[in-house]
Amino acid sequence: MAAQQPKVSLTGIKPTGEPHLGNYIGAIRPSLELTSAYESIYFVADYHALTSVRSREELASYTRSVAATWLVLGLDPTSTIFYRQSDVPEIFELTWVLSCVTGKGLMNRAHAYKAARDRNAEAGVPDLDAGINMGLFNYPILMAVDILIMNADVVPVGQDQSQHVEYAADIAGSFNHLFGDVFSLKIPEVVLPAGSSAKVLPGIDGRKMSKSYRNTIPLFAPEKQLRKLVRGIVSDSTPLADPKDPDSSAAFVLLENFATPETIKEMRGRLEQGGTGWGEVKNALFETLNDWLSPLRERYTELIAPDSELDGILAAGAERARDRARPVLAGVRRAIGISHL
Amino acid sequence: MAAQQPKVSLTGIKPTGEPHLGNYIGAIRPSLELTSAYESIYFVADYHALTSVRSREELASYTRSVAATWLVLGLDPTSTIFYRQSDVPEIFELTWVLSCVTGKGLMNRAHAYKAARDRNAEAGVPDLDAGINMGLFNYPILMAVDILIMNADVVPVGQDQSQHVEYAADIAGSFNHLFGDVFSLKIPEVVLPAGSSAKVLPGIDGRKMSKSYRNTIPLFAPEKQLRKLVRGIVSDSTPLADPKDPDSSAAFVLLENFATPETIKEMRGRLEQGGTGWGEVKNALFETLNDWLSPLRERYTELIAPDSELDGILAAGAERARDRARPVLAGVRRAIGISHL
Repeated sequence: MAAQQPKVSLTGIKPTGEPHLGNYIGAIRPSLELTSAYESIYFVADYHALTSVRSREELASYTRSVAATWLVLGLDPTSTIFYRQSDVPEIFELTWVLSCVTGKGLMNRAHAYKAARDRNAEAGVPDLDAGINMGLFNYPILMAVDILIMNADVVPVGQDQSQHVEYAADIAGSFNHLFGDVFSLKIPEVVLPAGSSAKVLPGIDGRKMSKSYRNTIPLFAPEKQLRKLVRGIVSDSTPLADPKDPDSSAAFVLLENFATPETIKEMRGRLEQGGTGWGEVKNALFETLNDWLSPLRERYTELIAPDSELDGILAAGAERARDRARPVLAGVRRAIGISHL
Repeated sequence: MAAQQPKVSLTGIKPTGEPHLGNYIGAIRPSLELTSAYESIYFVADYHALTSVRSREELASYTRSVAATWLVLGLDPTSTIFYRQSDVPEIFELTWVLSCVTGKGLMNRAHAYKAARDRNAEAGVPDLDAGINMGLFNYPILMAVDILIMNADVVPVGQDQSQHVEYAADIAGSFNHLFGDVFSLKIPEVVLPAGSSAKVLPGIDGRKMSKSYRNTIPLFAPEKQLRKLVRGIVSDSTPLADPKDPDSSAAFVLLENFATPETIKEMRGRLEQGGTGWGEVKNALFETLNDWLSPLRERYTELIAPDSELDGILAAGAERARDRARPVLAGVRRAIGISHL
């Protein structure tokens, strides 16, 4: 019996903001934990981000900052294939090919597009397609290509993306039906990364930490900014001496996600007893975060600098990705009657 | 005063059938006449054809046959840049980029898409998008890229394509508005090639010569087939001795398009006088076509053979096309914040 090939897991990371603690808990940590179980492929989906980012400075800096963040937090680019989507031109040629076998009706029913129309409807905009660009409308085809060109078995995404993963199998099926069996018809498994459905991390205003609420704590904020942000976390004005409910406090919930079990247990006990204020929780949180992130921050700062080692890492990853993509595209070209000269 | 740069004229040729006499009169000859006035760029739009061709054999053979036809009929690949669309990957990356700045509403209003919906409506199909693929829906973006990536000034197309040419300027404008002045905002001139609006060439059944009527005379049909097709042209049964109206005859109209003025004049006179039958017109037509096409047929047959010189010609053209395309894409990448590694 031949040794079983490890399954291939593919994760796209959209560079639409500076990575923050919420991204770490909700996506980065659980995704990195998956790398031990699969042959892993990670990519920075910069051309996906282009459907919404409209500033060259933001797209450039978010791309570097996202790539540097994952590397600093443990992504090993020698075992994981790690590349920038825009460095694999085969993806865009295949996107055209697969658009020619994708029914428009499938895209009309895609969740992300329908959600954008619903927002227009709710806002009373008469043209439901207003403000919707063709990148957003075509996006499920690009995502299908991302998956199919890497021959991924497993796609760790949130539930909101599972329809788009199913579309990859639908589109592969349409292609095979018209041009022969080029794609394996496995339906990529949607794996929800462990922890991603766990409790939501609060931001400094107590609501879910999210870029759109401007309440995030960036992972690699300079020490001074980190201290300021942690101090600014909302807290109630229960007097110092009174017993407190730790779970009502954003600062404590954050601490729970990053401190050692001993620290958490001790702090919970002291809060419930009374005599300990929120300020102490915030100090503990700052120390915990800073102890963890300080050594990483330096490496991160090196990597995001222009012309750093990051470029070489991504270029090497792109070569590995293209080595996988080229034979897939070549098989597709043969099947449709477009030979390489 | 600097010498004025010649204007750049771009023509896409969709390989959806074997070129016939109607293509020659309506498109090939007038387009080749334009090459003297412009810096000319011609390409075989094989990835455009993929929106409708669903057979690898057809796509492959039509592509070779269209490319060989234009070369044999006088396209000079040393002066004209002549390439296959699929050999310029920059086109497909730029298609993604420009899709992100193209409003979906613009595509909703595109003529080719609306015509496809109208056909569904007329056929009583309830889902107006039924059978419409995303290649057809996205096609105006691809066409805009074809034009913009070659920086074309002039696009000789039929009136049915002029809206799509205007879209190229609209899409370039949207890009510039968001990301800075990368594209020149000239609106490509739609030049109707001389002769293209001239009278329609009849097919062997007397209707317009068109692949969809299966009434064509292929340019490079073998001699035997050519003779058979010409003999099969419809004609009425006016007795030999009677005077005839030359203009009522498909064979005479065809002869008028290919024979010398003397031959045409003489034949017209004899028909109007009476005593000359349609068979003689057909014989003259066959001789005229065969004299013209025989020497070309051999060269055509060489070129369409696998691994012929054609591949080298198209590969050299692709290099020249990519030399034009690369700096355009590089400028776009800089503008959106996606650097080359």
